[in-house]
Order: sequence, then structure tokens, then C-alpha cells
Amino acid sequence: MNGGHGRNSYANNSSLQRNVIDRSKTMIDEAIANHLDIQICPPSSSNTFRIADFGCSVGPNTFIAMENIIEAIDLKYRKSGSTPEFHVYFSDHTSNDFNTLFAYLPPGKAYFAAGVPGSFHTRLFPKGTLHVAHSSTSLHWLSRVPKEVLDTNSPAYNKGRILYTNAAHQVFEAYSAQFGKDIQAFLHARAEEIVCGGLMVLNVPAIRDQTPPSEFQTETFSIFWDLVSWTWPRR
Amino acid sequence: MNGGHGRNSYANNSSLQRNVIDRSKTMIDEAIANHLDIQICPPSSSNTFRIADFGCSVGPNTFIAMENIIEAIDLKYRKSGSTPEFHVYFSDHTSNDFNTLFAYLPPGKAYFAAGVPGSFHTRLFPKGTLHVAHSSTSLHWLSRVPKEVLDTNSPAYNKGRILYTNAAHQVFEAYSAQFGKDIQAFLHARAEEIVCGGLMVLNVPAIRDQTPPSEFQTETFSIFWDLVSWTWPRR
Repeated sequence: MNGGHGRNSYANNSSLQRNVIDRSKTMIDEAIANHLDIQICPPSSSNTFRIADFGCSVGPNTFIAMENIIEAIDLKYRKSGSTPEFHVYFSDHTSNDFNTLFAYLPPGKAYFAAGVPGSFHTRLFPKGTLHVAHSSTSLHWLSRVPKEVLDTNSPAYNKGRILYTNAAHQVFEAYSAQFGKDIQAFLHARAEEIVCGGLMVLNVPAIRDQTPPSEFQTETFSIFWDLVSWTWPRR
Repeated sequence: MNGGHGRNSYANNSSLQRNVIDRSKTMIDEAIANHLDIQICPPSSSNTFRIADFGCSVGPNTFIAMENIIEAIDLKYRKSGSTPEFHVYFSDHTSNDFNTLFAYLPPGKAYFAAGVPGSFHTRLFPKGTLHVAHSSTSLHWLSRVPKEVLDTNSPAYNKGRILYTNAAHQVFEAYSAQFGKDIQAFLHARAEEIVCGGLMVLNVPAIRDQTPPSEFQTETFSIFWDLVSWTWPRR
């Protein structure tokens, strides 16, 4: 993503992603209220509750998402008579503009902040570190272009295009297979990093089964606005 | 500090600081061997050992310092038949060039890395987070210029200079008082953040008592090379 705060920066061109976060707030509130069991998911022995945002970019969306989650968790803990300290990890590729992210951390924030550089398709935290893992409008980014898409001798060759709308079915299959590998890598890594009883919140743009390639782009954004999201408690 | 990797960058102008780290290795090895009690200082319930470098700048010195510490701890744990995962936090002012720091993280590093922006004169971590806190050639940086040093009506006015060598005794007293406040703030913050039984390693340039102001600069570097360092176990 473009760093900084200029005209073409992510920070000034991410209202769609902000909208997803705003619309997912109720869903996250409910997931935390109903699925995060503070009896089986206590904060660490030092009373710290750890949250990570995977694919945070440079803000301000990530700050809003993290504050929404903290607010819901804080409410739940207050009802039980105690509140933990929050440690929030902002994670994105090493090339992400962390300098800008850190410069715009909200003053008076109610958490301790850290930046974590690296691909979310790999392990980024020690085992059993996180209580909540969050990712919004990020998981559709692949770790690489499928090699057959670039191979002029392959039926999946995409003629130099970066979209697969109206492309041959083999192009769709190549991208789909790559996403399969990537999401598996993401889930394997998070399965190690999230504590037992922790929660994972994912907002992912998606298409319905059987959607023809000619409608991929329209369909993607339609479903995107329908907000296909999942919240998974880890048991 | 100057970021990046240019001619005037910290990365290319910090051989003195590197020398301090190299010369403190034996002292740190001994401190970990003799003072870090892995019976009273076990890693967290998730088997994570957390280390922070306060005033890390942009590397490569901080990477060498952290690897030295990990090597000594790993050796100690191996003797006991188990090894933890290491989580290393690189901390410096928000204006530090974390982008460069992250870009030069050693490939194949044996730890998970995070950057922590903020002043080490404040709390930067939740309570009971860290097993080892390290700071090398950083604690002499003050949080502010003492205001009387800038006051033309004060006997501590330093005439616009940024050094106090050969200055009036009141100038020395003003800087000394500011350092007193700053080191107290640093120690109070770390006292909350370090686990019981954890270790703090500080390399700080210093002067001997009774050194006249005219010899401050020479003396500072003399003692610097003598490596006045402390290692404190927290009981």
C-alpha cells in the first residue's frame, strides 16, 4: 500500500475499507459477547490481553478496528469486575510504512502498541500469544502471482493482465489454488499463535459459488458490501 | 538518530556503540549465567521469553546485542533440557526510522520481532511482560533540555551551547537534575514491565565523582571505554 499521508496514500484512499470496519462492528460486538469466554480465555498471568491486526496498512482504519475490539472486550471484563491491560500488535509486510503508522497512533490510546513486520502467511508470533486475531479486507492479497498465469505456454496464461474477470477458467483455477495455499498457511500460523479459547475475526471479500467469470468484479464488490465475515472461537 | 543507510546515517556511524556492545558481551553472558534464575524466572505460560532493547535506533548494533543475549539465554535453557521461543521488541522514539530497522532484520533470525514506538521514560509495555530489558549507550539522552539552561536570566543559562564542558556549575546541576528525573522515570516504568526474577542490562556512559567540568568530555569517553555497566536482577 502507498505509505505517508499524500494524495495517493492508503490513509487518504481507504474509505471503502473503513466502511467494512464500521459495518462489522455489531458483528464483532456480538462475537465477543457470545463467543469469547473470559473463563476459558483469561488474559495472560500478567493480566495482559493481546490483539493483532493482520494487514494493518498505515491507518487510520486499523486504529478504529482495534478500538472497536478493545471497547467490546473491556465492556465484557468490566461486567466481571476486572479489566486487563491491552497490548495491540499492528502487523503488515516489512515494506509497509510503519513510520507513518506509528506517527499517527491515537494520542491517549488505551493500549500499548507494537508493530510486527512480515507476511501473515508465515508465523509472526510465539505460540499462544494472541487472544484476538483480526484481519479486514486483507486476506484477498495473495503471496505471489501463480506461475502458470505468467507462463505463455500454459492454458492459464493471463496475457499480462492482473485481473481474471472474463479470463479463461484455468486462470480462475490458478488463482483459486494459490488462495487455497495462502489461506491454509495463514490459518496454520494463527492456529499456533492464538491462545486456546481466543477469537479470530476475518472480513474477506468473496464471490458466491457458480458465479461466472464475467461477473466476478461486480459480484465481488456486491458480496463485499454484504460483508461476508467470519468469527471463529478457538476451542 | 539519522535513519536510512546513507553516509550520515546512524547505521554507518555507530562503530563506537558497536564496540560497547562487543565489550559488554562477556559481562552479559556472566550476568545471565549467574543472575537469571530460570527457576524463578520461567518464560510465560506459552513458553515465550521476551526481551526488549530500549533506544535501539536502526541497527545493526541492536541486532547484535539481541543475538548475544539470546545466545546466552538459549545456552542456559538448553542445559535444563528445554528452550523457549524468543520475542524481541525493538524500541525507540516514534520518530525513529523503524522502516529501515525492519528492512534490515537479519534473515534466518531465531526470534519473532516487533517494533515499539515511544519514549523509554514512559510505560511502553503491559505489566510483567519482559524477562530481559536491555539498553546500550542510550540512557544519556535526556527527555528535554532543562528549562533554566535556556533562560537568559538564570545562573544556569548555557549561552546557547549544547554541551556543559567548561560551563558554570549551575549548568551541570541543571543537567544532572534532569537526568535524575529521567532515570527515575525509566526505572519506574521498567519496574512495572519486567517480570519478577527478570534481568535489566544497562550500558551507560558516565563520569567519576568530583571530575571538574573542564574534564567532562575527555572523562566521559574514558569511562565510556572502561564500560561502566550494570546488570540488575529484579527480585
